[in-house]
Amino acid sequence: MNRARKLYEEIGAEAVLTKKSYLRLYLTGFESSAGYVLSDRDKDVFFTDSRYTEAARKQLAGSGIEVKEMERGMTIDDYLVGYKQLAIPFEQTLYPEFKRLSDKGFALVDSSEAFTQAMTIKTAEELARIQRACDIAEEALQKLKGELREGMTESEAAALLEFHMRQGGARETSFNTICCFGANGSQPHHESDDTKLRFGDPVLIDFGCKVGGYCSDETRTFLFGDDHKHTEFKKAYASVLRAHNLVFEKAKAGMTGAEIDAIARSALAEDGLDKYFTHSLGHGIGINIHEHPTLSPRSVQHIVDGMVFSDEPGVYFDGQFGIRIEDSCTMEGGRVRSLMTSSKELQII
Amino acid sequence: MNRARKLYEEIGAEAVLTKKSYLRLYLTGFESSAGYVLSDRDKDVFFTDSRYTEAARKQLAGSGIEVKEMERGMTIDDYLVGYKQLAIPFEQTLYPEFKRLSDKGFALVDSSEAFTQAMTIKTAEELARIQRACDIAEEALQKLKGELREGMTESEAAALLEFHMRQGGARETSFNTICCFGANGSQPHHESDDTKLRFGDPVLIDFGCKVGGYCSDETRTFLFGDDHKHTEFKKAYASVLRAHNLVFEKAKAGMTGAEIDAIARSALAEDGLDKYFTHSLGHGIGINIHEHPTLSPRSVQHIVDGMVFSDEPGVYFDGQFGIRIEDSCTMEGGRVRSLMTSSKELQII
Repeated sequence: MNRARKLYEEIGAEAVLTKKSYLRLYLTGFESSAGYVLSDRDKDVFFTDSRYTEAARKQLAGSGIEVKEMERGMTIDDYLVGYKQLAIPFEQTLYPEFKRLSDKGFALVDSSEAFTQAMTIKTAEELARIQRACDIAEEALQKLKGELREGMTESEAAALLEFHMRQGGARETSFNTICCFGANGSQPHHESDDTKLRFGDPVLIDFGCKVGGYCSDETRTFLFGDDHKHTEFKKAYASVLRAHNLVFEKAKAGMTGAEIDAIARSALAEDGLDKYFTHSLGHGIGINIHEHPTLSPRSVQHIVDGMVFSDEPGVYFDGQFGIRIEDSCTMEGGRVRSLMTSSKELQII
Repeated sequence: MNRARKLYEEIGAEAVLTKKSYLRLYLTGFESSAGYVLSDRDKDVFFTDSRYTEAARKQLAGSGIEVKEMERGMTIDDYLVGYKQLAIPFEQTLYPEFKRLSDKGFALVDSSEAFTQAMTIKTAEELARIQRACDIAEEALQKLKGELREGMTESEAAALLEFHMRQGGARETSFNTICCFGANGSQPHHESDDTKLRFGDPVLIDFGCKVGGYCSDETRTFLFGDDHKHTEFKKAYASVLRAHNLVFEKAKAGMTGAEIDAIARSALAEDGLDKYFTHSLGHGIGINIHEHPTLSPRSVQHIVDGMVFSDEPGVYFDGQFGIRIEDSCTMEGGRVRSLMTSSKELQII
């Protein structure tokens, strides 16, 4: 059953109308900048324009989703005639659109929660896109590591990394690459700037790319040469890595986000480092770089098979250094499996 | 007077609350992923979080906009107590947010139109950011031209171009680079793919980057070697270039978008090519890659000093080739001035 049909049955409204770009992508698997998906008892239709018709027909052949080019001079409202009840995602609907449909007399039903729940569990095809985005990102970082030179700026390194991802087949980045040299790593959301790489610097890179509309997310921290002043850094690195790895060892399907967060947080606490772990352990990854589920001390959601999320403990010592180790992961067969394959042992390059 | 104060006075509501990221950027000139701008009779306040406080205070010192870190456990609603009337941009407000504020009893006033109008006229500082984005893009294209090789794919060329822009100081692209080899140029919104560059191919590249949150937009069409089969192409190129250039010659401040569009469209008509010009002449450029004004046959808006827009006539011959020549431009001293400096004579590289 295609995803539009599945959502339609879950929502249970007379008709389901979806405009928001990332929700359309979810329903169809097809990337486009405009259009609608409309489902009713009889059919699922993707309304698009002449730019996309041919490609959409090709990609959606056999999917059960009909592709229809909107006729010139028609608006989506012309295709809604006859329906009394209409489901739209309230949380992704702008007020004027809501008001227009409401003024037309439709009984509006909220589809947001159904989307959120459905999108949390990835299909094999969705997982394959995320895996490909992870593979491209990992290969790009390998290339970058061979190109880092003293005096290179954070922005240059970010540009090179993004180039390798783009050339590896990614359409775009998942978010602006966070590349931190030296003490800049102590700011979890530092923006790559003109800071130059010096011998002995810790390097923290948080980055990702998109394939078929789906994101990867990864962070690696390593040393650019060892000036033998890194005793504290190395101790902290070992703690963060242990916290990161314990998630694979101890987390089980059915635990809440808070319980999995606690695995890493309590490991850091054993080394007295939990107070430097100032953010959540992880977040869901999919079409959006941040989505459900959340793995934080307050997360009551159960983490189950098919979810994709980050495992990213980190510690930050203001003005000194930051360490974060992040994999994109999935829950599979009851256990957490990383989508990354590169080594996380501390590297000195 | 800072832009938040100016908008406040134009809107005339008791308080003006702005959440949407690009509108916040417009009001403050400061890029951030979260926050609010709140103006009332007495002051303009940028509410942000600990990630941005320091940088925002530095950048907004002396601007008249106060930077306030939202207190832990507080929401923006806690800072709205006492207001009866609140302006928010209806067109950029999601329904649940609208409903929450409405349910709290605020008399809601729409600020969308005031933003649209204000954002259409660029300040010197905004123009400087756009100019810098144009300069970086032009330099990047120059570099790419020296690197194009037979067998290179569209995606590789796009990746290289984006790398040069990123390395030139751009934070990100304005949009996914459109790189078309050969007949692919006949699709105005072709997505860069695995098509390989061959000797004699027309190359069409539509691209741009962002500096300080502001976009550039440019298209160049040229030949990768001359296989002497380009008689029609060269004739059409000369027509498009003439149409493009006539805009600088004939457009005057106060003309409508439709009148300026007609300058280029009628020039193409003289050569019998207007039926191949299947889109508008131009669109506004600023924080968004497409904004007001529009230069199309239906545009009644007057184009005046301070506006920034594209001049991009194009012709498309299905399955053969496409030609588009686009500059980012501004209306200045009553005439259209290009922000691009590179030559637009047909190049064979």
